[in-house]
Amino acid sequence: MKLFLLSTLTLCAALSACSTVQRNAATAPTLSDMNAVSPALAHYTEDVVIGELWKRPDLSSRDRSVVTLSVLIALNQTVELPYHLNLALDNGVKPGEISEIITHLAFYSGWANATSAVGITKAVFEKRGITADQIPPAVGDRLPIDEAAEARRANGVQQNFGRIAAGVAQFSTDVLFRDLWLRPGLTPRDRSLVTVSALVATGQIAQIGYHLNRAMDNGLTRAQASEAMTQLAFYAGWPKVFSALPVVKEVLEKRAG
Amino acid sequence: MKLFLLSTLTLCAALSACSTVQRNAATAPTLSDMNAVSPALAHYTEDVVIGELWKRPDLSSRDRSVVTLSVLIALNQTVELPYHLNLALDNGVKPGEISEIITHLAFYSGWANATSAVGITKAVFEKRGITADQIPPAVGDRLPIDEAAEARRANGVQQNFGRIAAGVAQFSTDVLFRDLWLRPGLTPRDRSLVTVSALVATGQIAQIGYHLNRAMDNGLTRAQASEAMTQLAFYAGWPKVFSALPVVKEVLEKRAG
Amino acid sequence: MKLFLLSTLTLCAALSACSTVQRNAATAPTLSDMNAVSPALAHYTEDVVIGELWKRPDLSSRDRSVVTLSVLIALNQTVELPYHLNLALDNGVKPGEISEIITHLAFYSGWANATSAVGITKAVFEKRGITADQIPPAVGDRLPIDEAAEARRANGVQQNFGRIAAGVAQFSTDVLFRDLWLRPGLTPRDRSLVTVSALVATGQIAQIGYHLNRAMDNGLTRAQASEAMTQLAFYAGWPKVFSALPVVKEVLEKRAG
Repeated sequence: MKLFLLSTLTLCAALSACSTVQRNAATAPTLSDMNAVSPALAHYTEDVVIGELWKRPDLSSRDRSVVTLSVLIALNQTVELPYHLNLALDNGVKPGEISEIITHLAFYSGWANATSAVGITKAVFEKRGITADQIPPAVGDRLPIDEAAEARRANGVQQNFGRIAAGVAQFSTDVLFRDLWLRPGLTPRDRSLVTVSALVATGQIAQIGYHLNRAMDNGLTRAQASEAMTQLAFYAGWPKVFSALPVVKEVLEKRAG
Repeated sequence: MKLFLLSTLTLCAALSACSTVQRNAATAPTLSDMNAVSPALAHYTEDVVIGELWKRPDLSSRDRSVVTLSVLIALNQTVELPYHLNLALDNGVKPGEISEIITHLAFYSGWANATSAVGITKAVFEKRGITADQIPPAVGDRLPIDEAAEARRANGVQQNFGRIAAGVAQFSTDVLFRDLWLRPGLTPRDRSLVTVSALVATGQIAQIGYHLNRAMDNGLTRAQASEAMTQLAFYAGWPKVFSALPVVKEVLEKRAG
Repeated sequence: MKLFLLSTLTLCAALSACSTVQRNAATAPTLSDMNAVSPALAHYTEDVVIGELWKRPDLSSRDRSVVTLSVLIALNQTVELPYHLNLALDNGVKPGEISEIITHLAFYSGWANATSAVGITKAVFEKRGITADQIPPAVGDRLPIDEAAEARRANGVQQNFGRIAAGVAQFSTDVLFRDLWLRPGLTPRDRSLVTVSALVATGQIAQIGYHLNRAMDNGLTRAQASEAMTQLAFYAGWPKVFSALPVVKEVLEKRAG
């Protein structure tokens, strides 16, 4: 189900539940709306974004949905969110993973972006009959931690900013790196993909080096990193990606050497 | 019709269609709303923004509307969009140009900002009786391309990022610079003004040098570039403009030399 | 009243006016909504944000509300705004101060963010019976100006950008530094806290040095500056704060020396 804008319309001819789904996403324009305002945008959406971008190899449609959701949540682009939540679920992103992506982005793009996404996601989950047992609990088992790598990270932060920003350093260790990142509902590789996508979308160039390296340590391949940039060009915009590419290049070249 | 916030109210005394126009823009505050919360903001809006900024020479009210629409779309500031779409049309921005601005900003500020603008623009177009024949078609004639300049651009991107971001490089050439920028519904000078405005609004300093030079190659004058920064100070905020000014200065001084 | 999400629910059992307050903030998720989508986010909100962050010493809950409102307005995060406007009033931020914060952020984060906040704030003010006599007038007395410091600032801007951005330089002097900053409805220290919060939230690193120094000249202490970064980490997101910390460190170390 890659034909995303079209697919909603097509599905709605077949599913009785669609009138409410459509109403919930009322502000998201259909292709017909797009054609009324910009036939060119409808054309690029159908022929380039749906017809080419989402079908490119090197990054699965599931991963493209992870990247796209991360951009929409990090930029608070709520109009498209119901559509892309449904597409993500169709593309194999699990409800529990969406739940974790939202929580992860509370920390990596600001609390109110996450709470804004909660209301919209709740409506989508309800429409699809997604229930509490599909969502990871608040507390429970944690993934094992790489103590050596975490010590290096924590010491670096402590040395640089421990005196002038003790609170930030403390929460970084206690809540982010010793808890959030170890939650098993989303793999570290996916958390990294979410993080890098949000960093590009919000223009946080200075943080990309650390997190892209971490992403690749966590299993993101060079081809996937490269192709994530293509997806981000369309959803975060060309300038954001061109501003990120020098850092991406530096990371990839250093790791190749 | 420069008195924009006031003008809506004034117009509405005279036009029967206004009740629906007003309803559509229901969330946009009136001067009366502003006075209830911040008489100072109402005062600055009337006396400084309407009374001075929009009347300054060196940039026409039509161009100021192009800059302002670009900021609102690039930052997804939907509350003010209906008002400024109407003002832009009153200031001489053609419906087809608005259509092209939205499509252009899909690429230069992220797809969901454009689709968000589509729904709002459709309602404004309908209220004003703007029909499909006033909107550029998806495909058709293209402006001639400067092959030498495009070869320099494409080679630069290929050398820098061709290996690590092949997809971005390919779509940049095929879709942006050999198609989007050549669409005749918006002049290259206006596309550049839209692009530079979006870059300042989204803080993409590293991309301003190339695009401001391109804007001036495309016919934007020094006085217009300078005055666009004044308009952007109010609509994108002072800090975004002060962060952009060192690059603007460098570009203007190099071209003067 | 620090238990903010919970407090709304609790209050609503006691106050008959709450049904309308709740309806106005309908899109803001409750803890129950959060638990349906992400029990982890609800847990972090209750136990870390409410349970720890807002109770930390070194920054009052009143100042935390100033920082948080500034982020929400500067990023146009309207869903959370009604809740945090009410919390800010409960925490001792005066209606007139909220009025001035909105106007200040028109200049420091773009006009449409302020007008967007006006509509939401008007509804909150009405529900709480806040009337016009509690709001500062558009014109009136101004605080005394430090002519020497203002001359240094104005000369610096004039030398750097006077020729290439005369309009920006002129409005900076006439409207911002000789009028807005001198409005008595918000102390210069609070205006600085609002400004620095907005700069971090919008990633305007290059402007933080000047404004953090100004904030401390205006009375913000080192401990408050440091703890504001902790508050910003949660509300603007970790990456924005980590991108700001090198400048914060430089400012604090220079002033210590």
